[in-house]
Amino acid sequence: MKPAHGHRPAKRGRPSAAAEADLRFARVDLARSRRCGLAEVIYCPGKTPAQVARIAGALVAAGQNVLATRASPEQAEAVRGRHPGAVYHRAARLIALRARPPAWPIGSVAVVCAGTADLPVAEEAALTAAFMGARVVRVYDVGVAGLHRLLARVAVLRRARALVVVAGMEGALPSVVGGLVDRPIVAVPTSVGYGVHFGGLVPLLAMLNACAPGVTVVNIDNGFGAGVAAALINRAGRRVRA
Amino acid sequence: MKPAHGHRPAKRGRPSAAAEADLRFARVDLARSRRCGLAEVIYCPGKTPAQVARIAGALVAAGQNVLATRASPEQAEAVRGRHPGAVYHRAARLIALRARPPAWPIGSVAVVCAGTADLPVAEEAALTAAFMGARVVRVYDVGVAGLHRLLARVAVLRRARALVVVAGMEGALPSVVGGLVDRPIVAVPTSVGYGVHFGGLVPLLAMLNACAPGVTVVNIDNGFGAGVAAALINRAGRRVRA
Amino acid sequence: MKPAHGHRPAKRGRPSAAAEADLRFARVDLARSRRCGLAEVIYCPGKTPAQVARIAGALVAAGQNVLATRASPEQAEAVRGRHPGAVYHRAARLIALRARPPAWPIGSVAVVCAGTADLPVAEEAALTAAFMGARVVRVYDVGVAGLHRLLARVAVLRRARALVVVAGMEGALPSVVGGLVDRPIVAVPTSVGYGVHFGGLVPLLAMLNACAPGVTVVNIDNGFGAGVAAALINRAGRRVRA
Amino acid sequence: MKPAHGHRPAKRGRPSAAAEADLRFARVDLARSRRCGLAEVIYCPGKTPAQVARIAGALVAAGQNVLATRASPEQAEAVRGRHPGAVYHRAARLIALRARPPAWPIGSVAVVCAGTADLPVAEEAALTAAFMGARVVRVYDVGVAGLHRLLARVAVLRRARALVVVAGMEGALPSVVGGLVDRPIVAVPTSVGYGVHFGGLVPLLAMLNACAPGVTVVNIDNGFGAGVAAALINRAGRRVRA
Amino acid sequence: MKPAHGHRPAKRGRPSAAAEADLRFARVDLARSRRCGLAEVIYCPGKTPAQVARIAGALVAAGQNVLATRASPEQAEAVRGRHPGAVYHRAARLIALRARPPAWPIGSVAVVCAGTADLPVAEEAALTAAFMGARVVRVYDVGVAGLHRLLARVAVLRRARALVVVAGMEGALPSVVGGLVDRPIVAVPTSVGYGVHFGGLVPLLAMLNACAPGVTVVNIDNGFGAGVAAALINRAGRRVRA
Amino acid sequence: MKPAHGHRPAKRGRPSAAAEADLRFARVDLARSRRCGLAEVIYCPGKTPAQVARIAGALVAAGQNVLATRASPEQAEAVRGRHPGAVYHRAARLIALRARPPAWPIGSVAVVCAGTADLPVAEEAALTAAFMGARVVRVYDVGVAGLHRLLARVAVLRRARALVVVAGMEGALPSVVGGLVDRPIVAVPTSVGYGVHFGGLVPLLAMLNACAPGVTVVNIDNGFGAGVAAALINRAGRRVRA
Amino acid sequence: MKPAHGHRPAKRGRPSAAAEADLRFARVDLARSRRCGLAEVIYCPGKTPAQVARIAGALVAAGQNVLATRASPEQAEAVRGRHPGAVYHRAARLIALRARPPAWPIGSVAVVCAGTADLPVAEEAALTAAFMGARVVRVYDVGVAGLHRLLARVAVLRRARALVVVAGMEGALPSVVGGLVDRPIVAVPTSVGYGVHFGGLVPLLAMLNACAPGVTVVNIDNGFGAGVAAALINRAGRRVRA
Amino acid sequence: MKPAHGHRPAKRGRPSAAAEADLRFARVDLARSRRCGLAEVIYCPGKTPAQVARIAGALVAAGQNVLATRASPEQAEAVRGRHPGAVYHRAARLIALRARPPAWPIGSVAVVCAGTADLPVAEEAALTAAFMGARVVRVYDVGVAGLHRLLARVAVLRRARALVVVAGMEGALPSVVGGLVDRPIVAVPTSVGYGVHFGGLVPLLAMLNACAPGVTVVNIDNGFGAGVAAALINRAGRRVRA
Repeated sequence: MKPAHGHRPAKRGRPSAAAEADLRFARVDLARSRRCGLAEVIYCPGKTPAQVARIAGALVAAGQNVLATRASPEQAEAVRGRHPGAVYHRAARLIALRARPPAWPIGSVAVVCAGTADLPVAEEAALTAAFMGARVVRVYDVGVAGLHRLLARVAVLRRARALVVVAGMEGALPSVVGGLVDRPIVAVPTSVGYGVHFGGLVPLLAMLNACAPGVTVVNIDNGFGAGVAAALINRAGRRVRA
Repeated sequence: MKPAHGHRPAKRGRPSAAAEADLRFARVDLARSRRCGLAEVIYCPGKTPAQVARIAGALVAAGQNVLATRASPEQAEAVRGRHPGAVYHRAARLIALRARPPAWPIGSVAVVCAGTADLPVAEEAALTAAFMGARVVRVYDVGVAGLHRLLARVAVLRRARALVVVAGMEGALPSVVGGLVDRPIVAVPTSVGYGVHFGGLVPLLAMLNACAPGVTVVNIDNGFGAGVAAALINRAGRRVRA
Repeated sequence: MKPAHGHRPAKRGRPSAAAEADLRFARVDLARSRRCGLAEVIYCPGKTPAQVARIAGALVAAGQNVLATRASPEQAEAVRGRHPGAVYHRAARLIALRARPPAWPIGSVAVVCAGTADLPVAEEAALTAAFMGARVVRVYDVGVAGLHRLLARVAVLRRARALVVVAGMEGALPSVVGGLVDRPIVAVPTSVGYGVHFGGLVPLLAMLNACAPGVTVVNIDNGFGAGVAAALINRAGRRVRA
Repeated sequence: MKPAHGHRPAKRGRPSAAAEADLRFARVDLARSRRCGLAEVIYCPGKTPAQVARIAGALVAAGQNVLATRASPEQAEAVRGRHPGAVYHRAARLIALRARPPAWPIGSVAVVCAGTADLPVAEEAALTAAFMGARVVRVYDVGVAGLHRLLARVAVLRRARALVVVAGMEGALPSVVGGLVDRPIVAVPTSVGYGVHFGGLVPLLAMLNACAPGVTVVNIDNGFGAGVAAALINRAGRRVRA
Repeated sequence: MKPAHGHRPAKRGRPSAAAEADLRFARVDLARSRRCGLAEVIYCPGKTPAQVARIAGALVAAGQNVLATRASPEQAEAVRGRHPGAVYHRAARLIALRARPPAWPIGSVAVVCAGTADLPVAEEAALTAAFMGARVVRVYDVGVAGLHRLLARVAVLRRARALVVVAGMEGALPSVVGGLVDRPIVAVPTSVGYGVHFGGLVPLLAMLNACAPGVTVVNIDNGFGAGVAAALINRAGRRVRA
Repeated sequence: MKPAHGHRPAKRGRPSAAAEADLRFARVDLARSRRCGLAEVIYCPGKTPAQVARIAGALVAAGQNVLATRASPEQAEAVRGRHPGAVYHRAARLIALRARPPAWPIGSVAVVCAGTADLPVAEEAALTAAFMGARVVRVYDVGVAGLHRLLARVAVLRRARALVVVAGMEGALPSVVGGLVDRPIVAVPTSVGYGVHFGGLVPLLAMLNACAPGVTVVNIDNGFGAGVAAALINRAGRRVRA
Repeated sequence: MKPAHGHRPAKRGRPSAAAEADLRFARVDLARSRRCGLAEVIYCPGKTPAQVARIAGALVAAGQNVLATRASPEQAEAVRGRHPGAVYHRAARLIALRARPPAWPIGSVAVVCAGTADLPVAEEAALTAAFMGARVVRVYDVGVAGLHRLLARVAVLRRARALVVVAGMEGALPSVVGGLVDRPIVAVPTSVGYGVHFGGLVPLLAMLNACAPGVTVVNIDNGFGAGVAAALINRAGRRVRA
Repeated sequence: MKPAHGHRPAKRGRPSAAAEADLRFARVDLARSRRCGLAEVIYCPGKTPAQVARIAGALVAAGQNVLATRASPEQAEAVRGRHPGAVYHRAARLIALRARPPAWPIGSVAVVCAGTADLPVAEEAALTAAFMGARVVRVYDVGVAGLHRLLARVAVLRRARALVVVAGMEGALPSVVGGLVDRPIVAVPTSVGYGVHFGGLVPLLAMLNACAPGVTVVNIDNGFGAGVAAALINRAGRRVRA
């Protein structure tokens, strides 16, 4: 685009080169890993494959890990074309590319989910937490309409430092799990449902009203955010960069 | 009445004197007991104590049972002033007055509730079902955050012909109960909660999304409606008037 | 998917083989028929035809009946490829496959609907109830704007043990039917409508506010759930598996 | 109030004295009767009794009829103190004061309502239409859960030029009436209900989705607006001032 | 579809042949013209072209006029294949077919609209009213942001017996028109807008809050309903069939 | 504070004593006048009269002007007890106290409102703008149902540098005004209305959908915010403190 | 036009031929530039390319500037086919065509945006303001999760006469900017987000609740409206046509 | 209450005496401390002072700590009458009563809040976390409209193991804090605001859309829940009872 008659980006007092990479269509925040414990993550929707690849490249050039969420196969292909070490997790729609081999996983994050349809969100959480250095345990397909499946796995849940609990429909699972453990629970509502489900609004609201204290909630289908939160909890006060 | 082109309700036409009592401020439907299995019920809010008493009187005069819902102590007093046999259930806000001694209770309706705050609604359901002739079992304070309390009572639940399950907060209890029994469940959301609870909207929506089939739902705090539905189910095809 | 660095499903204390079939992408609850009176039902959206067929196979292998809802023709084809006895009801989008010939239908469930557009939902309810052993009577296209059509069929309605009443638009039908019978009514709102209909929210809310007691409600377009509830009611206290 | 430093109402080109009466706290539109067929109506909430009386006085001084809606007894007292001919309808909360004796009522407006609790709104509509010169017929307490009461009065409904149909709860009455007559129906939802009734939103939405064409809708509890609309319809093309 | 094991439509006491045409997939109400002043109208969405044509045929066979709304070109083609006299109004998506030549139009309905994008809805209203015998005047593209266009046409508006006012965006036009005329106004909100317009909900709500009394409202984009209401008003108490 | 990597707010770090007054229950931002052109304003709800007075005292001590919004008479009394020069505008619920005599008012802000009930909000806007140095013109009671009142004052509107347009009900006034002037309009919805007015949500949404460009919107009843915005616009690029 | 009883818009009355171009499918308001400071703008959705081109032609014929919003490439092509001087800004979806060379830009409008995904809306605002004669400065990709990027550019923001602040997600940017400058801020929420973002409703509501006064808000994604408002503010009281 | 004819609480297989205290009006879960790390907390609304005191007594009798939330002064008085060691925190509406002296506080929880009006919720969080053994740091009145106050305290925030961030209005604070630290943040929306704030819904939604990952959210005004979550996080994997 040629901007009309003469107005242009302000000359700004630029921060140091280390803090920011200016790609014209985006300004990559290179200090975020140090500041927030996780390098800037690429949110893929609305970006071209080439743009995703270029941002990934800027992060790699700065020696940072790359995590790209909600990535399409085409976007993954573009990144892998330049960085063959990148891994694409199709179900979770994540691209992961490490600047250095991962450290030995620490602590324990349990990812629990209610039904098979919730699996992509659960995997996004699990892989994100693992990317940030957590040991991850999966406890899948343990919905509340068949309690015995969940009750049979309580000991596993109690060993975790943080739990991510993923559920659609009426979103009852975090309440039930919250009554069984003494660990922080990050609840993730999913858009799995129909009718007056409102694309996940109902489980989200149900989780915010969970009768078990210690349950906190993230946005609908936000497995990534839940994975980050659980990984930060899991670090138990240690300062780590990812 | 001249109904359009030939179809006629059995034995209507200008309704017989027996079918209606005109009190000027209200027209009491005296045929409802025969038609719907329950005499017209008095919904008390917005009526003066005298009006409630007069409607009760009209029903009594017609030899019908009287049930008045959401009644204030003043309204109850007015009814009892004219009909000392009337009973006022304060927690459930019900006035009950029988034209004839109740029949021996039949079948079994279980009323289950999550927390003490849900008790008035649960009692409204239990007393209504009993009024309509059901044997009623109460299973109270068995919320999902302490599953063992519920699991210890599963055998009782399984013996019922119909279940009323009452819950506020996130409304998860019907889903859990629904996974444990093979009986029809009438779920009642309550207005117990705060914040994004919206006065009971959240448990109502959660119950409509319950992952256990066989769960049906009534309006918020509508213990009366749930009691009626459960009693009708409990009659198991027998035609009874109340 | 290859899960990243070392985290893996927890070793869990598994329930007995009889209770569960683990297909890796799903864990089929084989005890549900015994526990809830209906074998686990396959909710088809989001599953591949092959997955639907494999779950059906697991149920068949365990000697259970198969019911699959919201099934596409492709999914039906996949099931029928392996199990030629399966029947696909296109309008209702149901796949039904019986482990043994059906018992003689019992009781009576009336399925009532307001307009032709509501027919697929009504059929889903009718076929589900029939699958669970109920004798089913259909009373279709009897909307409230032409009352004579409904009034002409009142005697039929009164003979049912349970009624399913399906309506879109303003959802008035259950209120009118509820004033004519003394049987439990399961109301099903449909997404048929436009403008401020909000995809069925308006009839759902209207039904929850129905002035006739004894009306309970299921989620929008949830003919399946209504059919299950009606069938459970129709069993009249008998314990049956489907 | 003394406005701060010097800003003041603009000197405006004032319209002629006949068109407007400036009371400083209000500017009364004296041309509305001629323009819109009904003199400016006083909406009472938020006005002091003295203000209501003064506006009434300004209308009287201009030889116009006075109608004041949602009036409290105190406001009515203030008006009657200055204008003893004013009539206060307590249930409908209307004050009416005629500049000249009413003309012989014309045509016919039927006001229909579902339950006793809807009566104040129905009366507001009936009295407003009568104030504007219509002959009014009341058909009250004919809710859809007891259809025979309505069917017995169909002939009355068919004789009206316009119908106002008032209902709370699920708001089904206009649909049913609309299927019985060939006259324009103005539907008025009321705030009578509880739970997911949302203060009348549910019957309002139901009425907007009424399956019977020819139904139009006004705001919740807006008996006044419905009365005006029905009276304008009833005039049948004649130009009348009120 | 082959319904499962033995349940079948109830044998019902059928109304007389004149009142109803049973096409198996629909039951056409042939008495509606006499009862409601307009023959049953075909709502086309969700029907196959053949079904629309068959219902049209049944109406024609009974000597009734045919009006079909929201019709696609394919549906129109199917009707015209059997009934060459049928007319398809593409913008308004209406199919009209008269059993006999129209009577001379009576009275006057003015259809007013705010912007060009609202035109299809306005045309649906105008053609419907004309179909029902009204003389129709169109006053288009007179939005409130250019008041002079509207003010220049006030005399035309004042000559109408009923007005239909169509607007999207903020829906202000009915309020402004309502302040200029003494006729009943049927307001039609349209789905024209974006952002927090919610598909027409905002103008609908604005119209329900219109400060001008005498305004009544129909559902979003419901030009048909508005046309029916205006035509019924326009008949001025005469009983006419269409 | 050690801000991350090198960028620093000019002259921050632990803020100088001048920048903040710590009252223990509140920390008053004394730099806001310099930074934002208006000293920190006291939002009174939830504060005790003593707290309001103490915050006012801290501002006075720092030589700053005091404006307190939504103040009760008691809060005003408390401030006036310590600062007799404070003025309380009862209708607008504002307390104003100047550190120095006001400068000569500049420019011109027109405050327009639809009905008398909107007056308190309009006054809050007018007094706030005046407090910030604007010359203010009031054009009140010019609702769209009586257009002539507005049209008679167009010349006044056109002379303003900024307009505040206040309206409840359907919120149509800003659209109409926006079609008459070439000045920025700040629209203020009010909570005046009933039924589906939702406490001002409807005019707010209507204003956001205004068909006239150049209209921007503030929160419901936020006369203060509108006054600030209009005063900032009115300054026309000059930097002034208030 | 004959306006009612004597009040007249200055120099209107039946509009002169210059005031309107009637294209049958649209009536172009040629007086708007004079009246509102900006010629009628073409809102493209729902118009054919030929219609857009014809309206553009009518404006050109009247010597007016042309701005068309939300234009597709096809619509742009049609305009450029007739008017090669027209410029199409693809990201902003604007067509601009000047009747005469632009005047030297005046004042200063800063357009600030939070993330790259908000860029199309920001560009629509920037180009619109520039089209209306403003000097425009862009400050992009300065979201609140990396404050240093914004703080480094505060001096630029403070030099503007008006700011447009564009943000999706939680819409926090206007609050933060509002705490840093003493200029009017027009906030634009964007539809960038997911889950309980409701297509931009959340940032819109957040902006309406911004704790910094002086923030006003436009509809979701309405960069055009924000650009107009900012340009009108930037003119600082001068009367200019565009 | 005397329950009607013969239905009574089921004889249930009771869990061991240690697990539960049955007070008839409530059943106290004595195993929760062991299971969930916090003894059953008394939610006071709707309970009589005597009931609160009796539940507190049952917990004390079982050697457990007592925490009662949303307690009124009367409820506190009742508890203190029986247990003089109980402490009532008026602002936070908490009653705390320790079975044994608290352990030395561990870790660090920072509680951050935006404005003075949010203080009661912040205190509820702070006191709850402290009750559960956390060292707590308060950083109050650091809203985003005066960023320097927050930036001056970043070092404090970075030393915490978990942060609770409390904000009303537009709820922007968690996003800003989330961009400055690498710790898990529990965001608490408050009901502080007006207009389209919807009692805290807007900051809740804004927080769920926070652009900074690692932010999780609890219900509106739920300082208690946030305090529990933060305390569980702060324990860093150690198993503690409170």
